[in-house]
Amino acid sequence: MLHTSRCPEFEKKEGVQKATETLVSNHVDGLVVIGGNGSFNGALELSNHTDAIIVGVPASIDNDVYGTDETIGFDTAVNTAVAEIDKIRDTAVSHERVFIIEVMGRERGFLALEVGLTSGAEIILLPEVKYRKEDIFKIIRGNKAKGKKSGLIVAAEGIGDTRALGEQVQRNTRTEVRLSIIGYAQRGGSPTARSRLLASLFANLAVELLAKEEGNRVVGLQRGRVESIELKKSCGTEKTLDPNLLRLAKILAT
Amino acid sequence: MLHTSRCPEFEKKEGVQKATETLVSNHVDGLVVIGGNGSFNGALELSNHTDAIIVGVPASIDNDVYGTDETIGFDTAVNTAVAEIDKIRDTAVSHERVFIIEVMGRERGFLALEVGLTSGAEIILLPEVKYRKEDIFKIIRGNKAKGKKSGLIVAAEGIGDTRALGEQVQRNTRTEVRLSIIGYAQRGGSPTARSRLLASLFANLAVELLAKEEGNRVVGLQRGRVESIELKKSCGTEKTLDPNLLRLAKILAT
Amino acid sequence: MLHTSRCPEFEKKEGVQKATETLVSNHVDGLVVIGGNGSFNGALELSNHTDAIIVGVPASIDNDVYGTDETIGFDTAVNTAVAEIDKIRDTAVSHERVFIIEVMGRERGFLALEVGLTSGAEIILLPEVKYRKEDIFKIIRGNKAKGKKSGLIVAAEGIGDTRALGEQVQRNTRTEVRLSIIGYAQRGGSPTARSRLLASLFANLAVELLAKEEGNRVVGLQRGRVESIELKKSCGTEKTLDPNLLRLAKILAT
Amino acid sequence: MLHTSRCPEFEKKEGVQKATETLVSNHVDGLVVIGGNGSFNGALELSNHTDAIIVGVPASIDNDVYGTDETIGFDTAVNTAVAEIDKIRDTAVSHERVFIIEVMGRERGFLALEVGLTSGAEIILLPEVKYRKEDIFKIIRGNKAKGKKSGLIVAAEGIGDTRALGEQVQRNTRTEVRLSIIGYAQRGGSPTARSRLLASLFANLAVELLAKEEGNRVVGLQRGRVESIELKKSCGTEKTLDPNLLRLAKILAT
Repeated sequence: MLHTSRCPEFEKKEGVQKATETLVSNHVDGLVVIGGNGSFNGALELSNHTDAIIVGVPASIDNDVYGTDETIGFDTAVNTAVAEIDKIRDTAVSHERVFIIEVMGRERGFLALEVGLTSGAEIILLPEVKYRKEDIFKIIRGNKAKGKKSGLIVAAEGIGDTRALGEQVQRNTRTEVRLSIIGYAQRGGSPTARSRLLASLFANLAVELLAKEEGNRVVGLQRGRVESIELKKSCGTEKTLDPNLLRLAKILAT
Repeated sequence: MLHTSRCPEFEKKEGVQKATETLVSNHVDGLVVIGGNGSFNGALELSNHTDAIIVGVPASIDNDVYGTDETIGFDTAVNTAVAEIDKIRDTAVSHERVFIIEVMGRERGFLALEVGLTSGAEIILLPEVKYRKEDIFKIIRGNKAKGKKSGLIVAAEGIGDTRALGEQVQRNTRTEVRLSIIGYAQRGGSPTARSRLLASLFANLAVELLAKEEGNRVVGLQRGRVESIELKKSCGTEKTLDPNLLRLAKILAT
Repeated sequence: MLHTSRCPEFEKKEGVQKATETLVSNHVDGLVVIGGNGSFNGALELSNHTDAIIVGVPASIDNDVYGTDETIGFDTAVNTAVAEIDKIRDTAVSHERVFIIEVMGRERGFLALEVGLTSGAEIILLPEVKYRKEDIFKIIRGNKAKGKKSGLIVAAEGIGDTRALGEQVQRNTRTEVRLSIIGYAQRGGSPTARSRLLASLFANLAVELLAKEEGNRVVGLQRGRVESIELKKSCGTEKTLDPNLLRLAKILAT
Repeated sequence: MLHTSRCPEFEKKEGVQKATETLVSNHVDGLVVIGGNGSFNGALELSNHTDAIIVGVPASIDNDVYGTDETIGFDTAVNTAVAEIDKIRDTAVSHERVFIIEVMGRERGFLALEVGLTSGAEIILLPEVKYRKEDIFKIIRGNKAKGKKSGLIVAAEGIGDTRALGEQVQRNTRTEVRLSIIGYAQRGGSPTARSRLLASLFANLAVELLAKEEGNRVVGLQRGRVESIELKKSCGTEKTLDPNLLRLAKILAT
């Protein structure tokens, strides 16, 4: 078994070599790699050194795997963050404060976008979308002028220093601003029904592919159906944010 | 505003007449009907008596609206039921018992199917699929012979008398059987992120349709995209269970 | 290890004899019995046949052990029921219905009393307190006259046939009444902080008693402190409902 | 109504003066102050300038009010933190990391102590108890030598810079250390059954005191019973951590 939690190793050359030796010495014919983009790049490298049938099953809170609309664990992470923001909103409203909520996502904003949309954030900040601080100040000041004294900004961790941003917003809008970082809890907890369903559907197709000896593929949800694509294609293509969700979020842009 | 919670009235002639008068006397130009199949049948009837632009937004824990893969509230109800079954399983395992869990769904098994799949039920009973009691007994007896002393049967309320079924299973398998009815809690609670996202996406399209004066339509999620279909088509077509999920569930059939 | 989940056996003569033999043949010097009143009666019987040091640790959702203000698991069960009632209330209010919520408790009303008080029930029905149906009708009718169209009745399962009661209330008050049985979920789930704290505190004292060879005792929480009493006294004394909570609940009485 | 959420004002002279004027100009005879230590100090000051009957009801996640074993909201905050740590532990174990979890509590460690005890923390750091960093390193190294590669340190925010501490632990124990700050979510959310019960019991006694015109008192839970003490005594006495819990926690000390 390859611990996907040890991805960093798996992504390095020595990791791949070690994995290759383990597969060969144990006469492993088939391998299911469960993980995100990093694990699949390791799997692709591994496929060059072994004849084992390799199938990728996308599981990641980042939802950053090309070839699937959604990864196992993503819905769970979104709900964990939203449930916590529901609790923070109680303080935001009663104390009339603006909260910056930092969620996970160093390079990709899938999680922040969906958390922002479903938690009722006024502003959503994503690594993929440039924003001007002056626009944030303007929105907060505008809401204040209209009598709305509390507010939520959901930001992916990859957008930069959220603590410094909070201080700037506070200075420029004369509003009390607080920062809350929703951390590793997003990676754990009991999975939601949807994450469990995806796991069952993906596992089912992965086993079918192994049985049919169709390797070097990644299973996934494509427009509501469970399908598979080539591992090489999944690794080599960047998944982009859903333009409909982006539009819905009226995200700050230059 | 039409209380969808008063559907029973709305589905009757007098209800439709009252609604028509309300619309006319208040000079209402557009109407968004939020509800399930029953509400939409009322809306269709209403559309014959008014020029108001009517748009349907599917919201129902039954997921029984043709034209959308998923209704607002469905994901919430599934998660509520699954969370409760997670707690019941603790007793099932520690006391070595078989539990029949009855979930909502008088005529349709969408909820029971997804709850059963994601809660790890050994047997799923749906109104749409005939089953033979002897098959249930056989499965329970077989599991017992293999050393598995506990078990979960998820049943939609529409499959018949679950209490009587439990007694028959107990008698025929010599296993302690308990019944748990997951009731009205499935209709309430804080919505999941997914139910909130659908609500935002559906509302957005509904407003666009109103603005473009395209009435008598029902918005929905079709293979991952938000689209709309004719109200008449939605009301007149029966939505069927996903054959992939059915196969995955290896449901009991004659 | 004695499975407390097999209490029914343990409470019988053969169970005690089997337990005695197990202790002797395994040269067991000390025994911690974790359970409720039934398990402790078995432990008391066992103490007449063995020299092992026996210490009882009260764990039961019924909270029916004399010698402790609270049992491990009680707070968890209360919170599970209250969380579910919070969800049911959504339907009660939106559909203007009266709900009877049946919680566990065949002979004792500790759970129903605390659930009723903390879920905002209008009426609480307990096995220990006689009530007249006419009084229930009067309260519901009175609330209706004042414009309050929904309502919650929390009832312990031991008060009789809640389904029949619901039908009588419906007939006599011309209000839609629904029954919801909060079942075995109350016995499971992740423990609350308070249940975990009691478990640590009780376990700590139990081990101290074993080390000091002070057996035939039951540990417990007495007015905020962790103490122990004689096993015989715990088994022989009936624990009564807290009169302050009873008063607070303004429970229906003849 | 005095917004306890505006305590900072209430604790200042101008705040008290404003409150006095409001009471006088509105002919207020009785006042219930709901809050923590800060609010009660304001109430005490207020009592010198008005004849209104003042009763304090302890509500604070800090549990820092002398005269009550527990404040309204404390149990809710503990459970929120513990539920989040349960999710973080998944990552701690799977990734073999040590987590420092910072919970609220600038000056007092009631919350951190109970969260630490019930979340299974190896180390608990409180503002009231001095600790030596070398002792922390020793424990982590010792656990690592025994094969335990993950770990939890629960720290009150008042113990100093947890980020710097984490870096020191990482350097000195050659273990990956992560920091998670459980922030404002601890102040919100749906109250637990216990917090609701305390609220009912305290409110009940507060109203009785008002009716009997017994002012300048603080209600509270004392060894399991609802009683009241003098407001002056509550404000003037420091509440200390429960020595039994401290011993149970085997807290690091010099």
